[in-house]
Amino acid sequence: MAARKQQLAVVLLFLLGGVLSFPLGQDRKDALTCGYEVSYLYSFTALCFGLRGKQQQVAKAAAAAASCHATKPNMLNVHLVPHTHDDVGWLKTVDQYFYGDRNDIQHAGVQYILDSVVDQLLKNPDRRFIYVETAFFYRWWKQQSSSMQQTVRQLVNEGRLEFVNGGWCMSDEATTHYSAVIDQMTMGLRFLNETFGACGRPRVAWHIDPFGHAREHASMFAQMGYDGFFFGRLDYQDRARRMMAKEQELLWRASDSLTPPVADLFTGILPNGYNPPEGFCWDQSCDDPPIRDDPDLEDYNVDDVVKRFMAIAENQALVYKTNHIIMTMGSDFQYENANLWYKNLDKLIRYVNGLQSNSSKVNVLYSTPSCYLQELHRANLTWALKTDDFFPYADSAHDFWTGYFTSRPALKRYERISNSNLQTCNQLEVLGGPVSRKGPFGGGDKKAMAVAQHHDAVSGTEKQHVANDYARKLASGWQHCQVFQSLTEADTSSSVSVLKVVPVSKATQEVRRNRGFAVNELVFQVQAPPLGYSTYSVSLLQDGSPPTSTQHRTPTVIQNKFLKVTFDPDTGLLSTETCPNDRPCVCVCSRYNASDGNNSLSIQPSGAYIFRPNSSTPFPFYSLQPQSSVVQEVRQWFSPWVSQVVRLYADSRALELEWTVGPVPIDDSLGKEVITRLDTSIQTGEYFYTDSNGREMLQRKKDFRPTWQLKQSEPIAGNYYPINSRAFIKDDVDQLTVVTDRSQGGGSIHNGSLEIMLHRRLLYDDVRGVAEPLNETSDIFPEGLVVRGRLLLSLDRPPSAADAHRPLAQEVVLQPLLTFTDGDLNPNTRLEFSGLQAALPPAVHLLTLSQWDKDSVLLRLEHQFQSWESKVNSQPVTVNLQKLFSTLDVLGMSELNLSANQWKDEMKRFDWTPQKGTGRPNLPLTSLQ
Amino acid sequence: MAARKQQLAVVLLFLLGGVLSFPLGQDRKDALTCGYEVSYLYSFTALCFGLRGKQQQVAKAAAAAASCHATKPNMLNVHLVPHTHDDVGWLKTVDQYFYGDRNDIQHAGVQYILDSVVDQLLKNPDRRFIYVETAFFYRWWKQQSSSMQQTVRQLVNEGRLEFVNGGWCMSDEATTHYSAVIDQMTMGLRFLNETFGACGRPRVAWHIDPFGHAREHASMFAQMGYDGFFFGRLDYQDRARRMMAKEQELLWRASDSLTPPVADLFTGILPNGYNPPEGFCWDQSCDDPPIRDDPDLEDYNVDDVVKRFMAIAENQALVYKTNHIIMTMGSDFQYENANLWYKNLDKLIRYVNGLQSNSSKVNVLYSTPSCYLQELHRANLTWALKTDDFFPYADSAHDFWTGYFTSRPALKRYERISNSNLQTCNQLEVLGGPVSRKGPFGGGDKKAMAVAQHHDAVSGTEKQHVANDYARKLASGWQHCQVFQSLTEADTSSSVSVLKVVPVSKATQEVRRNRGFAVNELVFQVQAPPLGYSTYSVSLLQDGSPPTSTQHRTPTVIQNKFLKVTFDPDTGLLSTETCPNDRPCVCVCSRYNASDGNNSLSIQPSGAYIFRPNSSTPFPFYSLQPQSSVVQEVRQWFSPWVSQVVRLYADSRALELEWTVGPVPIDDSLGKEVITRLDTSIQTGEYFYTDSNGREMLQRKKDFRPTWQLKQSEPIAGNYYPINSRAFIKDDVDQLTVVTDRSQGGGSIHNGSLEIMLHRRLLYDDVRGVAEPLNETSDIFPEGLVVRGRLLLSLDRPPSAADAHRPLAQEVVLQPLLTFTDGDLNPNTRLEFSGLQAALPPAVHLLTLSQWDKDSVLLRLEHQFQSWESKVNSQPVTVNLQKLFSTLDVLGMSELNLSANQWKDEMKRFDWTPQKGTGRPNLPLTSLQ
Repeated sequence: MAARKQQLAVVLLFLLGGVLSFPLGQDRKDALTCGYEVSYLYSFTALCFGLRGKQQQVAKAAAAAASCHATKPNMLNVHLVPHTHDDVGWLKTVDQYFYGDRNDIQHAGVQYILDSVVDQLLKNPDRRFIYVETAFFYRWWKQQSSSMQQTVRQLVNEGRLEFVNGGWCMSDEATTHYSAVIDQMTMGLRFLNETFGACGRPRVAWHIDPFGHAREHASMFAQMGYDGFFFGRLDYQDRARRMMAKEQELLWRASDSLTPPVADLFTGILPNGYNPPEGFCWDQSCDDPPIRDDPDLEDYNVDDVVKRFMAIAENQALVYKTNHIIMTMGSDFQYENANLWYKNLDKLIRYVNGLQSNSSKVNVLYSTPSCYLQELHRANLTWALKTDDFFPYADSAHDFWTGYFTSRPALKRYERISNSNLQTCNQLEVLGGPVSRKGPFGGGDKKAMAVAQHHDAVSGTEKQHVANDYARKLASGWQHCQVFQSLTEADTSSSVSVLKVVPVSKATQEVRRNRGFAVNELVFQVQAPPLGYSTYSVSLLQDGSPPTSTQHRTPTVIQNKFLKVTFDPDTGLLSTETCPNDRPCVCVCSRYNASDGNNSLSIQPSGAYIFRPNSSTPFPFYSLQPQSSVVQEVRQWFSPWVSQVVRLYADSRALELEWTVGPVPIDDSLGKEVITRLDTSIQTGEYFYTDSNGREMLQRKKDFRPTWQLKQSEPIAGNYYPINSRAFIKDDVDQLTVVTDRSQGGGSIHNGSLEIMLHRRLLYDDVRGVAEPLNETSDIFPEGLVVRGRLLLSLDRPPSAADAHRPLAQEVVLQPLLTFTDGDLNPNTRLEFSGLQAALPPAVHLLTLSQWDKDSVLLRLEHQFQSWESKVNSQPVTVNLQKLFSTLDVLGMSELNLSANQWKDEMKRFDWTPQKGTGRPNLPLTSLQ
Repeated sequence: MAARKQQLAVVLLFLLGGVLSFPLGQDRKDALTCGYEVSYLYSFTALCFGLRGKQQQVAKAAAAAASCHATKPNMLNVHLVPHTHDDVGWLKTVDQYFYGDRNDIQHAGVQYILDSVVDQLLKNPDRRFIYVETAFFYRWWKQQSSSMQQTVRQLVNEGRLEFVNGGWCMSDEATTHYSAVIDQMTMGLRFLNETFGACGRPRVAWHIDPFGHAREHASMFAQMGYDGFFFGRLDYQDRARRMMAKEQELLWRASDSLTPPVADLFTGILPNGYNPPEGFCWDQSCDDPPIRDDPDLEDYNVDDVVKRFMAIAENQALVYKTNHIIMTMGSDFQYENANLWYKNLDKLIRYVNGLQSNSSKVNVLYSTPSCYLQELHRANLTWALKTDDFFPYADSAHDFWTGYFTSRPALKRYERISNSNLQTCNQLEVLGGPVSRKGPFGGGDKKAMAVAQHHDAVSGTEKQHVANDYARKLASGWQHCQVFQSLTEADTSSSVSVLKVVPVSKATQEVRRNRGFAVNELVFQVQAPPLGYSTYSVSLLQDGSPPTSTQHRTPTVIQNKFLKVTFDPDTGLLSTETCPNDRPCVCVCSRYNASDGNNSLSIQPSGAYIFRPNSSTPFPFYSLQPQSSVVQEVRQWFSPWVSQVVRLYADSRALELEWTVGPVPIDDSLGKEVITRLDTSIQTGEYFYTDSNGREMLQRKKDFRPTWQLKQSEPIAGNYYPINSRAFIKDDVDQLTVVTDRSQGGGSIHNGSLEIMLHRRLLYDDVRGVAEPLNETSDIFPEGLVVRGRLLLSLDRPPSAADAHRPLAQEVVLQPLLTFTDGDLNPNTRLEFSGLQAALPPAVHLLTLSQWDKDSVLLRLEHQFQSWESKVNSQPVTVNLQKLFSTLDVLGMSELNLSANQWKDEMKRFDWTPQKGTGRPNLPLTSLQ
């Protein structure tokens, strides 16, 4: 490693949220010499942002107000929002969607949508359109002439084309990790900012399709500066109650650790999903009657259309609070021929408003979510408070969308590893200096990861060929990361390098390989410094025959200084794990057979989206032959297609369960959903805890929702929640935390029990659009996919549990990158390197370190402990940024919002007043802590 | 009737085709004082045309040449013709198609097509589009702003938007009568002429979809001034031979009576129906891959697309004569979002022509049919000659489109009666003077009739609800004809008026009513003068009980001075009709059972388009009980659902068979196709004769085609031809002519036999798109449609047969209009009136007399005898137009083309050179005469 230090001309750093002492003057270009107090779960973001932002911000505010059509205070104002929902892959790949290829699968071509919308906006200045998915917009923009680009800039500046959400995609909320979500949002918003300036900054988050909504997403949106959030899907019982109570618009307090209003987000539930009201879909994909306004024809229908519209508007107004209502005039891939929509909407507005001279009190107008939101804000009301999340999502009594928490477990893991590699590469690119930025970099890796966050990507709800495409793109992204070679080529020829990039604390890792077709395994223990690497040399000393494995046939025990694990000699199950207080903990592998839809209660089968077992009693597996190996591990064979290795590392408090499931047999014509269940004597009182996007923990309770009286209709599927990185159960004495290596679904069905779904193979489509059974096969796995993964079990006292599971989970999320080269170790090789001058404090996580442009980097630090979870680590921490890096001189900094598209001190969000209350009206009297 | 004479300021009269002495000076406004020699089957047309035509004609010629893109003489030039095919009703009604209503049936909205095409033409001046159906264009045009109209005019003037065909619709060729076709073409072309001037005049006829092609249509197109004609469908064997022989482009000599080149029409057969080549359909309705030309993407496919296109072009060039080929880039209702097409076509042209710098010899360009035709004309080659027609059409060995000749017989008759009424009303409007033009006139009647000519209207190949809509429109059109009241109100209060409007000769008619629910029939004989009316008063003398009918139970005979008809006492069949030479003639009612597609040869069932009996042997019906009535008529009951009345009028040479069929029973799960077969001892040698669109007669021969060696695969359906107004069989001695009252299908399967299909009811769809079995039921006929019609049988010596069947057929086509009023006869009532000073000569038929505008009328006279069919009447005739009318003064006239959109002396058509030969290479040595 060249020992040179880079001179970064401008490093702008911005602290988001919370109360901070800010020792710098107003000039953000001042050199940074002081430390920062990082309190709770905030994120640092740092980048070169230029200085044009401030002026345009003002212009934007003025333009936005001016571009909204006037409303009428004494009338019911109906905001028509023309929009398209363009999945970044689903039934077709993202490329197929862009060009309009494979229209035999689904008619959709985004290039034409944007062509057509721009044309139609130009025809009538009253018209409005919103666009959401920057992954598509970016591709279209690249292909436009400069005059067309200028035209579009003008439309944006005039508020006729408005970007909402604006991330690279509309991310899934259940199965995405916050790290990747922030990245994909930043990528999309950066493009909009650099292309359109402040007028291109979305003011509204817009998640109209994701299947349930995570609190952490709301928190992130708040910290990204959004004024409000709209979505379309929520539990049918929840919606019914909210309609009655006029609580479909609410204030979401999205963190229990951040001081309001930092994570407060005004949230609106759209009236009709994201579709137009019935009978008013005028897209080419719809069949509703157009407005036939030629009075010479006998099929003249203007009176009928107007009458139906007025009735719908008046009914909708009954379930919202203000004299403004919103109608989403569009749907999936609509507006490919925008003329159909606009021609009829123009007529609708003309004819409906024409009745105002005849005492009608309905006023209909082209609008956007931000114009609608502005009117809600002006109404100056108080709004219902919400502090939990919107999981799980059920659209009917037996239709819980909890299957996709686990669907496509291999893809889910591959996405997670790809994120880890991407973060590593981003960091190495910064540390490697200019030389490392030569070569095939170009954001391909970042785009593949951004696309994978889409709510039909990592969610597992896409068609098989599309899932293959996501995986292929991720694999291709890996090729972009050749930076390690440039970083080490000057002074290393190491055989094995371990890069440790999670600057939490020094950690012990094992160098291990998937055995694959190899006969032998090489196992040894290594260490790597934070934000750096260690190099190990491996030589073959003797070309002898491999040692035979030692097999223990009697009751097996493995143990280290923290844990003792025994296996039942009869069932082979991991029957007793020595908890700190000797309470038993049994691990059972089981499976549910999936509903095939042939059921007296409902015809709903289990599918990619929906989980529905055909019985609430799982079928347990018993281990055929537990075997311990030379190291502290025991192999359990539950069946020919379910096995597990239980490992205990010498220095670890966590027990590793490496499960292997597949090919799931289907010769009995039954789909199967395989779980691991941990049965303990912990007195959970039916409470359990799951994380939100890998960050804050949320309390769950069996057969219970905090904000409405639940009628439970699916005893298993209705109690499943996303487990993005971990879940735990606890009582006053013990806490069992399970850290996962990917997003999975799970729940606590019995007292003291926690189950996690590992894999699922299904024979029926669940009729939510994907039109394929989730039955993963491939050339490599013609009999069905085999999936392997890890669960890390940690047993602790509750007050100190987070001190263990927080770093543990980060180690799983951001794992060391192993690289291998042949050859002898060069004696000049530098065997170890760290980009940090010293390890960060345990509470602080380096979330992002990424080259922004030639002279600046983006840095995000987060405090990773919730306010209540650790006596030690939940305290504020101070980090001296100037002394952070070993190879970088920080010359300046400025604080930005979480998504790096706004100065922190210019981030002015609407203020909203909550109604009194906790936001959890049904919550029993139990503390989260 | 007021006895005033109207002063017509300008009557311009134009004689089409043939050699004429034209006694007027060049100034067409000169008063007309002389007679005209009307030779053979020519048509007179007369209208006020204004005088701007001449200048614009010159401009048009220049513009057309200039607007065609340059081609490259040493390359293969590929003419891409963007087009849409917009059925004037089919699966949806014409109104539904226009607005895009009922897209659940079929996605199609013509208003949006025209919106979109104009937008896209403006984006790139190289682009071209053709539009065909004026019924749609007219509606769209009415709704445009004046600035949009100006924009479109500019596109037309620059040749970027070109009208082809240009009639109100693209008429069916098998089942339409020439009178109605000329009217609908005139209506469309008039609109184009008045809106766009000469630049809007179509130069190419374009019948890409009709299911077989009539020679009379080609003749009409020639006389309308078209330079050429393109179509898409012809017999699969015919196409195969023509491809081998490079005879897909040919010269059609479309009349055996008109002197070439009057009825010569250059005819091109399109390479792919009217669709784009496989893999190159870029409409929103298609699934072919778009051109993905972003080189950053791995799905870049430009090289593949170009390679495929070049291969297709080079293959296509092998079966055409010149170095120009045409590709139809469009299809049914395409271009609703024209951007998809043009964006990809732009790229295709760019990338294919880009290879010319790399020695490619393929040059691709936007083009139109007239630009393509111009290149063919410039090639200055000789072309194969064709003198027969393109019926029947088979697209495969067992798939003969001969069912639609009869499909929906009730609609076919209703259309024919409506035409008769329309002609009557048009004439009365002229005769009635200005007073008759007040009120609800507005072309509604004309439009309904024009729409009904469409190739999925009168053809019977539309969905049931669309057939209902055509009928409703026709009924509504009848309401527009209130002119008779104004014509007679001043001086009549007649009870029954008979209007005779066919100025052929004085005729005897019977006043008869459909019996319906009435107990009694009033039968008496009346006469009406040509182009006039007679009034009869009917009074009830005694309110007594009706007379009982007299029934004859013994062998029945009816006779008049010309004919004697006997009925077989055993079978009840009309067993012997006394022919002039006492040769027997038996009339058998039979039925075929329809194929249900369950057949070893082919799965093709009988359907709306296709006729396919499941056996070649029909099932005969025998009369249960022949009954004669008080008049010269005998009722035959063949079955509960097949009956016939045989009538003989005192002064008539024709025997009338009034058949009633239905409801056709289907409880045996068999579709049925009911025929009448006339078995005679005439020695036909397997020849028979059918008319073309009600005009010229064509010779047919069983299992034979004049231009290729037929492999007959369907012995019945493959020998069916359209019988539009008549068919005959003959030998040297006798000719049996059958005049029909509507279009029907029929053939001569056996020597001396002629069969005509009356009705068909089918249980399967024939998979040609209509997606409904032809199973006509309604509220009124829940058990199935009952249809009644007439066949008129005339037995003559061949040399004089036409003298009988020509006027007979005109009487059926243009029947007297009966009107009824209550009340006593006013003593001042004028009982009889004629608009003519004297009856026209028998050879001359007044085809059209219609008010054109305030000061002019359109007059068409035709010579209605083919050159070979009558010693007396095939001779030239002279008519003195000045002395023609009794109530009109003709102040001026000018001759126009048949469609009245061009001066006759400005009609300059391309001249083409035929190859040597008769055009009927397989014709045996038999004369037509």
